[in-house]
Formats: sequence, structure tokens, C-alpha cells
Amino acid sequence: MTQTLAFVGSKWTPLVIFQLHLGARRYGELQRAMPGISPKTLAERLQSLEERGLVTRTVYPDKPPRVEYALTPRGHELGDILDTIATWATA
Amino acid sequence: MTQTLAFVGSKWTPLVIFQLHLGARRYGELQRAMPGISPKTLAERLQSLEERGLVTRTVYPDKPPRVEYALTPRGHELGDILDTIATWATA
Repeated sequence: MTQTLAFVGSKWTPLVIFQLHLGARRYGELQRAMPGISPKTLAERLQSLEERGLVTRTVYPDKPPRVEYALTPRGHELGDILDTIATWATA
Repeated sequence: MTQTLAFVGSKWTPLVIFQLHLGARRYGELQRAMPGISPKTLAERLQSLEERGLVTRTVYPDKPPRVEYALTPRGHELGDILDTIATWATA
């Protein structure tokens, strides 16, 4: 439990989840939506979210190939919880 | 928002809220319920929760005086959210 909270509370992770909770995004779209995040940090956060089964990474065989990130159903559940916290925090 | 999450995700804070979400507690009861927390950290967490309007501190004029900590309604709302995260984390 404490691990989950530390993960949820870590810098940038909630913001990445928030963005993807709005819909699938490409890497560049995520970067533009979160000025201040370094490419390395964004890549790390996406990877750890993927490892936790919260994000999927889909490569479309376009020319050049297109990579899209999206929340899994479980990821969207966490997105809903973050929405609740955001509402509570601003109430 | 990020501040709230960092606060919620900080070490011990969620556990203090969890304990008080079960009911009002005295300082010693909180310490025994969270082995590993230092007296200084517990005092700091209680104070910051009080400053954020999430915890009340009541002194009863017994001999010796009795001090009890309890969540405010807003504190209990956060307790409910933490319950949701705990359920999500173990699902």
C-alpha cells in the first residue's frame, strides 16, 4: 500500500496518468503537454507504468512507425482515483 | 494537485490517516500502531495534518491531561480515498 502511494505520489507519474486518462497519446504529445519533464524521465515513467500493467505501448507500422501510449482498464481505474483526489484537493 | 499527491504519498502520512480513519486515537496509541515511526516524525505529521485542517487535537483536562487526535470530516474524505487506493492496489 505505501509503495503504491509512493509510486502515485512520485513526481510526474500522476500527471502522465492524467494525460493518458484523457485518451491515447504519442510520445511527442505527452512531452508538449508536460513542459518541464525531461525525455529521460518521461521514458522511465512510461516504462514503469507499462511494467505495472497500467499503460500499453502500441507501434503502428506507418512510415515512419507511429508509437502510441494508452492506459489499460486498470490504469483508467487509477485515473479515476486521481480525479477524485484532484476534486478533493480543490474542494 | 501534485503537492497534494506528494503530501498523500509522503512516508507515514497515509498510515496516520488510515489509523485515525478508524477512530480518534491518543498519541501513544498511534505510536504503538505504527512501529518504526519516530516520535519526532509522528509529531510532525500530526502537526502538518492539523495545519491542513485534516486532524483535530483535543486536550481533555483529566489528571494527567489526555490528548486525543481525530480526523475532521475533510480528513475522513481523504481516508475514504486512501481506502479506494488500498482496494485498487490489492485488486
